[in-house]
Amino acid sequence: MLRRVLCTMFFMGALPSPAEMSQGHISVVLLGATGDLAKKYLWQGLFQLYMDQVSSGHSFTFHGAALTALEPGQKLMFDVLKKLACPPDEAPDRCAVLKDQFLKLSQYHQLKTAENYTVLNREIEVLLRQEGLKEAGRIFYFSVPPFAYTEIARHINSSCRPPPGAWLRVVLEKPFGHDLESAQQLAAELTSFFREEEMYRVDHYLGKQAVAHILPFRDQNQEFLDPIWNRHHVERVEIVLKEVVDAKGRTSFYEQYGVIRDVLQNHLTEALMFLTMELPANLSRTEEVLQCKLQALRSLRGLEKHSAVLGQYQAYASHVQEELKKGQDYVSTTPTFAGVLVQSDSLRWEGVPFLLTSGKALDERVGYVRVLFKNRAYCTQSETLRDAGHSQCKAKQIIFYIGHGALNTPAVLVSRNLFRPVMPKSSWREVVGQPELHVFGQPLSDYYVYSPVKERDAYSVLISNIYHGRKDFFITTENLLASWAFWTPLLNSISRQPPRLYPGGVENQNLLDFEMVSGELAFTAAEPVELLHPDRSMPSDFKTIQSKFRQSPLVSMWSEDLISQLASDVEKAANRAVAGSGQFHLALSGGSSPVALFQRLARHHYAFPWRHTHIWLVDERCVPLTDPESNFFSLHSHLLQSIRVPYFNVHPMPVHLNQRLCVEEDGGTELYAKEIAALVANSSFDLVLLGLGTDGHTASLFPDSENGLEGTRAVVLTESPVKPHQRMSFSLSLINKARQVFVLVMGKGKHDITTQISRVGRQPRKWPISGVSPSSGQLVWYVDYEALLG
Amino acid sequence: MLRRVLCTMFFMGALPSPAEMSQGHISVVLLGATGDLAKKYLWQGLFQLYMDQVSSGHSFTFHGAALTALEPGQKLMFDVLKKLACPPDEAPDRCAVLKDQFLKLSQYHQLKTAENYTVLNREIEVLLRQEGLKEAGRIFYFSVPPFAYTEIARHINSSCRPPPGAWLRVVLEKPFGHDLESAQQLAAELTSFFREEEMYRVDHYLGKQAVAHILPFRDQNQEFLDPIWNRHHVERVEIVLKEVVDAKGRTSFYEQYGVIRDVLQNHLTEALMFLTMELPANLSRTEEVLQCKLQALRSLRGLEKHSAVLGQYQAYASHVQEELKKGQDYVSTTPTFAGVLVQSDSLRWEGVPFLLTSGKALDERVGYVRVLFKNRAYCTQSETLRDAGHSQCKAKQIIFYIGHGALNTPAVLVSRNLFRPVMPKSSWREVVGQPELHVFGQPLSDYYVYSPVKERDAYSVLISNIYHGRKDFFITTENLLASWAFWTPLLNSISRQPPRLYPGGVENQNLLDFEMVSGELAFTAAEPVELLHPDRSMPSDFKTIQSKFRQSPLVSMWSEDLISQLASDVEKAANRAVAGSGQFHLALSGGSSPVALFQRLARHHYAFPWRHTHIWLVDERCVPLTDPESNFFSLHSHLLQSIRVPYFNVHPMPVHLNQRLCVEEDGGTELYAKEIAALVANSSFDLVLLGLGTDGHTASLFPDSENGLEGTRAVVLTESPVKPHQRMSFSLSLINKARQVFVLVMGKGKHDITTQISRVGRQPRKWPISGVSPSSGQLVWYVDYEALLG
Repeated sequence: MLRRVLCTMFFMGALPSPAEMSQGHISVVLLGATGDLAKKYLWQGLFQLYMDQVSSGHSFTFHGAALTALEPGQKLMFDVLKKLACPPDEAPDRCAVLKDQFLKLSQYHQLKTAENYTVLNREIEVLLRQEGLKEAGRIFYFSVPPFAYTEIARHINSSCRPPPGAWLRVVLEKPFGHDLESAQQLAAELTSFFREEEMYRVDHYLGKQAVAHILPFRDQNQEFLDPIWNRHHVERVEIVLKEVVDAKGRTSFYEQYGVIRDVLQNHLTEALMFLTMELPANLSRTEEVLQCKLQALRSLRGLEKHSAVLGQYQAYASHVQEELKKGQDYVSTTPTFAGVLVQSDSLRWEGVPFLLTSGKALDERVGYVRVLFKNRAYCTQSETLRDAGHSQCKAKQIIFYIGHGALNTPAVLVSRNLFRPVMPKSSWREVVGQPELHVFGQPLSDYYVYSPVKERDAYSVLISNIYHGRKDFFITTENLLASWAFWTPLLNSISRQPPRLYPGGVENQNLLDFEMVSGELAFTAAEPVELLHPDRSMPSDFKTIQSKFRQSPLVSMWSEDLISQLASDVEKAANRAVAGSGQFHLALSGGSSPVALFQRLARHHYAFPWRHTHIWLVDERCVPLTDPESNFFSLHSHLLQSIRVPYFNVHPMPVHLNQRLCVEEDGGTELYAKEIAALVANSSFDLVLLGLGTDGHTASLFPDSENGLEGTRAVVLTESPVKPHQRMSFSLSLINKARQVFVLVMGKGKHDITTQISRVGRQPRKWPISGVSPSSGQLVWYVDYEALLG
Repeated sequence: MLRRVLCTMFFMGALPSPAEMSQGHISVVLLGATGDLAKKYLWQGLFQLYMDQVSSGHSFTFHGAALTALEPGQKLMFDVLKKLACPPDEAPDRCAVLKDQFLKLSQYHQLKTAENYTVLNREIEVLLRQEGLKEAGRIFYFSVPPFAYTEIARHINSSCRPPPGAWLRVVLEKPFGHDLESAQQLAAELTSFFREEEMYRVDHYLGKQAVAHILPFRDQNQEFLDPIWNRHHVERVEIVLKEVVDAKGRTSFYEQYGVIRDVLQNHLTEALMFLTMELPANLSRTEEVLQCKLQALRSLRGLEKHSAVLGQYQAYASHVQEELKKGQDYVSTTPTFAGVLVQSDSLRWEGVPFLLTSGKALDERVGYVRVLFKNRAYCTQSETLRDAGHSQCKAKQIIFYIGHGALNTPAVLVSRNLFRPVMPKSSWREVVGQPELHVFGQPLSDYYVYSPVKERDAYSVLISNIYHGRKDFFITTENLLASWAFWTPLLNSISRQPPRLYPGGVENQNLLDFEMVSGELAFTAAEPVELLHPDRSMPSDFKTIQSKFRQSPLVSMWSEDLISQLASDVEKAANRAVAGSGQFHLALSGGSSPVALFQRLARHHYAFPWRHTHIWLVDERCVPLTDPESNFFSLHSHLLQSIRVPYFNVHPMPVHLNQRLCVEEDGGTELYAKEIAALVANSSFDLVLLGLGTDGHTASLFPDSENGLEGTRAVVLTESPVKPHQRMSFSLSLINKARQVFVLVMGKGKHDITTQISRVGRQPRKWPISGVSPSSGQLVWYVDYEALLG
């Protein structure tokens, strides 16, 4: 058949002669050739590729494949192919001829067994040999459910690899896993069959013209953007995909995924990366682009439960009940709406809020990426007398309009008071008109507006990029895993959280408006009671057990809430101390539990009186301070480097003196004790934060320690049963002088010791923690549910 | 006469009987009783006081005084009094009666000689004795030019003090000096005659109802304001007084003062204080209010030349030439327009821009204080479908509208999406209506709007406050001097700066728009050439001498520009080093010159790669690091505490070891040298900043030093001829290994040594600076004009 087709083509003179076909032959295999995606986009994209590249020097064959037997499959596939449309910008005559050729170059295969693959491979080889064509490469497009990936991949790898010198490109459609672990597993399987450069993971957003133009725009407008593309000038960024449709008919997929996995983890994150990544020197160097992107992804600040607001349209529950045959009492916490506050720790973007928002059953269908600049101007002339066009006091923004919405076309908008952008004339044209239309708070006439010369479907763009080997338009394994590593903690922490219900459509009104409050998100309007199902019982994360533990107050909650409460209580103590004495002396322990507290303080407590706070170490490992094992290093990484404590107020333990570690004769303990005595009235700290080890140790006071459990020395050297053995530590005597002592205990691993010490009396040699008992201060236990209840 | 008047009053039964007059008698003496201010406001204010307080239990007499002889003076004064108006809210009958009484209680005095004052005093005493009235107090209102203050004050002090038990209040009108020095001088003179509590310095802005309500508003709305009245929520504050009139007819005053002294130093600064000061626990405690205000004034960040943009309306020059009889070549640099960026270093306001703006010959007359809050919300519903009234995405602002402008009344406006303010019903009423009116970018209907129940003239309010002894409505000496201390450096630095010319009125268009750029202000639009007088030659501050000094590059400018250039060059070096090696090793010298550099880096170089910068000390005094004499302490105060350098990257010199200072055996110099060797590749610093002493020393390498001038030791102990004698210092050998060395020399005091060393060869024993000669690095001299040219 190929021979006939090629003859026809040569006969027509529309194609180069065999000698000119020097680029070789490309076989495209579309797996899932009769599925929805193939019908809707992929065949059209392949036809577009053929139209665009028919004179490129490559010859093509297109192989549709599915599990269906040959004859019914052939029929199904050709029904699809017959309906292929000619794009409006193509001459109808030429298109008709090319469509006819495309049909002839396309054939159906049943690909079910290993043998089917071997046969396909042989057919390709035979055809090429017969025609005397060199093989350029093979594209396998996986338009199949992910559970089928591994087997297909195995078959391709074992039977369908092209000969040496020709490339293999396998194209994969999402979902690529469901969280970090499943994505790692899938990636590991695929990696056993394909090399990284052979895999093209599709995120069709990267084919959206406005998204695909973000990087070129930044590159071509560097002159204007360089000074302003940073935290000093950007006020906020909104990355938004709003849908009007709901999840009806798709709940079997949706109930497992929800809006964050469906839209935010992939589409919106990709757009975010294009905005925030450093610009590589040369955009055509794929590897550099991908590295910069990965770097940007890795510098995102970790998400927490309150980084997101979640919603679910009211009818979702009944859609799930019907489609998944669930009972009336089935409760779904799958969000169909999410707003997430993302922040980057990069020097360029630190502090700039990136708001990622998507939802179903909203008031309009629209997608955009909006960069809003700070207003730094004061306009002396009164508003009514200003020249509207160029006033520096009007909002300044750059919008990559993905599509739909009021404009109903992809577009790039730049405020006229910002700059006139450089746009590639061949692909983007300036649009004038619709002055009465308002977008993003301003009339359209306030912007320079550009739309694509040819509007191209995302899949056509992507198929063209696969053909051109532009890997930067696809998701690499590293990129994918970094994205899951970023999103998975949030997904885990919200898995039990009930989303806010919303009626859907325009009735949502302001119910889904949200705002930023100290680095977190919260809905603006209180939840209207009538919207809640009265009998809907939800697991509550906010139940607090507040009672006594070892005769002292106990605060117990889920760990995240516990940390948040503890941080607030520390800030309260700080403000009280500063109001009283002008200073707050805070002694902090090492270990892993306090890290969450440090981060919380650094990120959410902007008003903490750091300038008046002295920070001391309760204990330290005998390693240099810059050693990652050092408690001080951890404190520095998670707290000190993010806040502004005066240098003189930071008091690391002097474990490193005379270039050696914790040698008795160097007098480190006395030195620290003297420093304390000199600065802290009566050596009585305002607040000492302690932890609890599984052996009952606290600070670095271990069971049966020779030093620190008894006597009056303030600071002592001790021995730990685990490495590094040598430690410096506050003594019980010093701890018990404090005005307040907070003990933080978290995690299942601490359940046994927590239970144990709840029952024992004061036996510091056996359980050092039991010796903590401030002589005139207050002791409070912060124990999370896991440690308390197991 | 008084007897007759009192009889009349008693006869009418409108006033209390003598027995009820238990509060005693008040004599008001208005000096300058026939002047403009008295005619326009003061007599009316006194009449208002009389109307308000006639039943208060006090009796009154009013004594107009001037230099004019008795008879003509009497006539002039009673011509004024006859025209006193009855306020619209006063019953006409009552007012007519009271006006008649007021006229009878008022008499004219010629006050010229010492004897005149003695006579006045005797008259008051006699009258009171005759009537059997106790004296409550005397008010002397100085409505006279300031040059007359001292003499009048002397006379009052020596002849007109009330008897013990009665108070004296002297009321002073601005200007209170012309800069810090003249204000101090005037204050010192006044203080020799009056006690602080006797002086009432008027700033009539404090009597403007909207300004006077700022503090009560903050107090009464604490519940709403507490969480948002800070840098986390306030985006910016604008304090604005725009005038349409120009300075014609007033240039003899104006040419000496200009807009900053006329409006910003007093009126706008006072409004600023009411906004930024901490709220005292009790607003009625005058002393607390004044202390909080003073505190706020003192925490303002110092102004620099580029903190302001300046303008002068085009016709000003000809007004000055005509009125002051100046020639065509007379050039005035007096600004008639100014925009100033003020910042506070308080914890509450750090980083919030306060824009103070005032000018003559502008497009409209209006005054307001506008607090604009950050938008922290995202509204999910599209704009067209939002509920306009309460959308959290609309601008949030609080405006104290002083008067005139579109509203044409004093008012308080609060965005409806913020909160409904608590307002005292007796004095402020809610206004509804004029929904089509737009103010500050929004329709009036977006605000809660309140206007005064009774519109009161500022002077009436102030005269009432004098009567009530409310010193918090007046400017204390401390307050005045703190304000001048704040404004004087700016006034000095701009005194030679040519203001931008503007045509005046609506034609100004966007010519006076300005914007904030890295902590400075600049006009937004480029200066249109046609507006400049072509032959107008202005002293330029930007002339740069760039040539060679001791065979190395020399950068020379006026000191402020030099520091700004040096700071930029340091940042460039930092970025280059970080791009190259990932780190920037910067060694800084002590002394006074670098302080300006430190401040400049801290305040204007937000993008400096501090996170990757290591900071070292070139030299140190042998005192503890927390001693204010220590170089490190100065570095910390002026730079480190304002930036975020990782703790590990800060390397103070170890002058303090084993609890003693710079003892050879403690090995501090070796310790520092080892630390350098461990972290700085080849001990070759990226940049070493040096100074130059009048004896030719640099670092702490003094002439004839035993250590550091020769040999290869990196760090040495040296002796200074001045205290503290002991020093630790980089050696020449270490300095000369650096990649770049910048030497900063500033001030007239350095002119001689600068001249000297420009001529000598390499003689480090005599002039240590001459030994600075990087072996493979670059040396650049930064010498200001004063040091270079004398």
